[in-house]
Amino acid sequence: MLSKEFRAACQIVALVGLVFSVLMLVPWAASVFTGWAGGESFLWSGLTTGIGCTLVLIAGWGERPKVSARFGVIVVNLLWWVLPLICAVPLLNSNSNFSFVDALFESTSGLTTTGSTVITNLVDQSRPVLLWRAIMQWIGGLGILSLGLILLPFLRVGGMQLFRMESSDKSDKPLPRLIEISRSIIIIYFALSVLCSFAYLIAGMAPFDALTHAMTTVSTGGFSTHDESLGYYQSWQILWIAIIFMIVGALPFSFFIAVFFTRNIPKLDPQIPAFFTVIFLASIFLLLIEGSSSITSFFETSQYIFNVVAILTTTGYASGDFMTYGGIGPTLFFFLIFVGGCAGSTSGGIKIYRFVVLGQLIRTSLKELIFSRGVFLMRYGKQIVDKDVFRSSMVMVSCFFAFLALFTVILGALGLDFITALSGAATALANVGPGIGDVIGPSGNFSSLGNSEKYVLVFAMIIGRLELLVALALFMPILWRD
Amino acid sequence: MLSKEFRAACQIVALVGLVFSVLMLVPWAASVFTGWAGGESFLWSGLTTGIGCTLVLIAGWGERPKVSARFGVIVVNLLWWVLPLICAVPLLNSNSNFSFVDALFESTSGLTTTGSTVITNLVDQSRPVLLWRAIMQWIGGLGILSLGLILLPFLRVGGMQLFRMESSDKSDKPLPRLIEISRSIIIIYFALSVLCSFAYLIAGMAPFDALTHAMTTVSTGGFSTHDESLGYYQSWQILWIAIIFMIVGALPFSFFIAVFFTRNIPKLDPQIPAFFTVIFLASIFLLLIEGSSSITSFFETSQYIFNVVAILTTTGYASGDFMTYGGIGPTLFFFLIFVGGCAGSTSGGIKIYRFVVLGQLIRTSLKELIFSRGVFLMRYGKQIVDKDVFRSSMVMVSCFFAFLALFTVILGALGLDFITALSGAATALANVGPGIGDVIGPSGNFSSLGNSEKYVLVFAMIIGRLELLVALALFMPILWRD
Repeated sequence: MLSKEFRAACQIVALVGLVFSVLMLVPWAASVFTGWAGGESFLWSGLTTGIGCTLVLIAGWGERPKVSARFGVIVVNLLWWVLPLICAVPLLNSNSNFSFVDALFESTSGLTTTGSTVITNLVDQSRPVLLWRAIMQWIGGLGILSLGLILLPFLRVGGMQLFRMESSDKSDKPLPRLIEISRSIIIIYFALSVLCSFAYLIAGMAPFDALTHAMTTVSTGGFSTHDESLGYYQSWQILWIAIIFMIVGALPFSFFIAVFFTRNIPKLDPQIPAFFTVIFLASIFLLLIEGSSSITSFFETSQYIFNVVAILTTTGYASGDFMTYGGIGPTLFFFLIFVGGCAGSTSGGIKIYRFVVLGQLIRTSLKELIFSRGVFLMRYGKQIVDKDVFRSSMVMVSCFFAFLALFTVILGALGLDFITALSGAATALANVGPGIGDVIGPSGNFSSLGNSEKYVLVFAMIIGRLELLVALALFMPILWRD
Repeated sequence: MLSKEFRAACQIVALVGLVFSVLMLVPWAASVFTGWAGGESFLWSGLTTGIGCTLVLIAGWGERPKVSARFGVIVVNLLWWVLPLICAVPLLNSNSNFSFVDALFESTSGLTTTGSTVITNLVDQSRPVLLWRAIMQWIGGLGILSLGLILLPFLRVGGMQLFRMESSDKSDKPLPRLIEISRSIIIIYFALSVLCSFAYLIAGMAPFDALTHAMTTVSTGGFSTHDESLGYYQSWQILWIAIIFMIVGALPFSFFIAVFFTRNIPKLDPQIPAFFTVIFLASIFLLLIEGSSSITSFFETSQYIFNVVAILTTTGYASGDFMTYGGIGPTLFFFLIFVGGCAGSTSGGIKIYRFVVLGQLIRTSLKELIFSRGVFLMRYGKQIVDKDVFRSSMVMVSCFFAFLALFTVILGALGLDFITALSGAATALANVGPGIGDVIGPSGNFSSLGNSEKYVLVFAMIIGRLELLVALALFMPILWRD
């Protein structure tokens, strides 16, 4: 029976839920120290969810099942489908009058580091609510890092087996090694966040804004405390700090671990130069086509680059509105939504390395087309890799477009216009944030959508975060068989 | 040196061009017999292109190169890049005042059986011009059949090796077998066209309309002699005749060859039931969501199904405007543009069997995800097939989306709005015809686009027709090396 696996998975979710209930006390504690209004509801939310999770923990106590791929699939699914519900509790309890669907949308967008929001006037929100939004994205980013660096490579999802860290699964003692990796991830992530906070502070942000924005920059989340997002500050210094830390958040953390903890310079992962090439080409193209005639200041130049990086890293901050960039704006940014950052980072989307793999595959196929008898090896950078890596990367990309079609048609059937339906589905699946068009574009907001549309997008955000295949596995009867 | 190959390829193109110059005499001959105006220019066009092609034939005479995949790639590319220029000649010479780019757009759209048009008032066109448009699509359809049934399986492009006809390349005498297949294709294609003409005639079309529409239905081309396309006739009988023959044109002709010429019932190709399933589901979904409240007649019901089939088979006829179907119209039809018909038919798009392959691949990957040690066989229907078939199908799909992004961004940079740029690139690459939106949707027309935009679409139509990879092969340096 699967009941043992399922019970154990519930235990793990309850344990993580307990961590979140403790985190809910942070906005409350901050409000006690600083005198912010609206902190008390976070105390009650923390206590109730804490008690609930403890009860589940006690009720489900029992022997542990064997660790297997199947068990991994169940745990990860349960975590990502249940935690948004838990994180929505303090939003529902808050003085911001969230409806249930709005609270769920906001918490899902937070945890998945999407960054789409249904809140229309952020300045009027209480500080504990704003802080909670930032905390959700920061922890969400950490969750994605462990997913991308530890679990997905183990599950061999979408070609992620490429990024198994040396000795992480060959070692005699997998658990100590796992704890070591997790510790390194947390230290680096924490250090980067602190660094980013100070940089924002020095550049002139208020301390609260510096802290919350640092938490949503490094996690490539994109929640802001202003409706105008980072455009509010009108400062090229702040834009460039964001550019740098968004890029850092979208780089493979395994690289940082190798540099700082193993103290040897690792081989350059081919996705890193490819990532910078995409940023460079998109920015240059945009500046040449659109910017050349209209740019009058360094700030404006920075804005173009900032918006490219914000979408490409799936952060979703905005400064100005790329919808005003003529015909090139909507079309270029629509396709940038799909790209994403590097594997093993906090970013979403299809991810750069899959495009590297794709390019390789196309090149090899063309060679075989011309020399029909030739057999060519598949490489990732200089390393020769198994063909299965290529296949499973392709499968993930195919699933992405299949789900894009499905969600777009559903959103269309619910009554959304073409651009909003298509770009809404894309931005949710890729966990980016803003879409294209006037409704959900950088100047728009998700608040005007209907309830059913918001639920569809909640589904899309979570499925996108699970790299689609992990969520799809739930629909395979063999998962539930003995 | 490649010069021998290139010279021989030019010879072949000149030979096919000679056939086209003879075909140009058909509208002239028809005008002589019936007294239509505007036929004379076709005589001069036929004579001049005929003389030109003959000169090339004489000039390039020489020894034949060895038949190889490389030679095949060069010939096919040269054919599809040069023939639209030849076919544009009578349009330029005609009394319709075509600009060069308009004539080229129309001839490319014809030969590739796309069916997008830049002509705004078709009823005012001279009959020889309308007949020439139908002839281009009819011959284009024949060209696509030979490409899909003979050459692409041989080149193993995009998984087409699945459709190698038995003994076609194992046989001792490949040439007689090839001629036999070609003969069967022509006989079936001709018979279907005659059948379709008579059906239209009986349903009440004028003889000229019945003939021209039959030629553009069986070829899944979509050129009409009326601006309202088949909607002009307001007849459910005509819609259903079109539905049947569009479907026939989008089915694999190898199936018909097997039935009529080898006289044994072939195994059911899995793409055929899949194709009918897509038609059924899309129609039902549309009728349930949009039709249920508004349908008052059988004609209206037929229109919904007709429009689904017209886009899915990449014919591109219209009856009414699917843009008026609420939110579901643009979103559903946008994705239907990509799907296409069966391999080995006259239709374009990604093609049904690649979705069958995709589904198989996703299912297998999910099984492997859950049982990490399992190895599962790849099947197409009941047949176990080589993994390379799956890989090259994926490569074609990836290329499709890569080119879609490229052409969309270029069209956006040229100033087109988002919907027109995106759907214009899609409809050209998939050789469908109409796009989404008001400009190039079913009620719109490509005449209002700028010249550069039309050239981009000409490129996209030809590249789409060459299943992308055959065109991409031109950019591989190894093609040009010795």
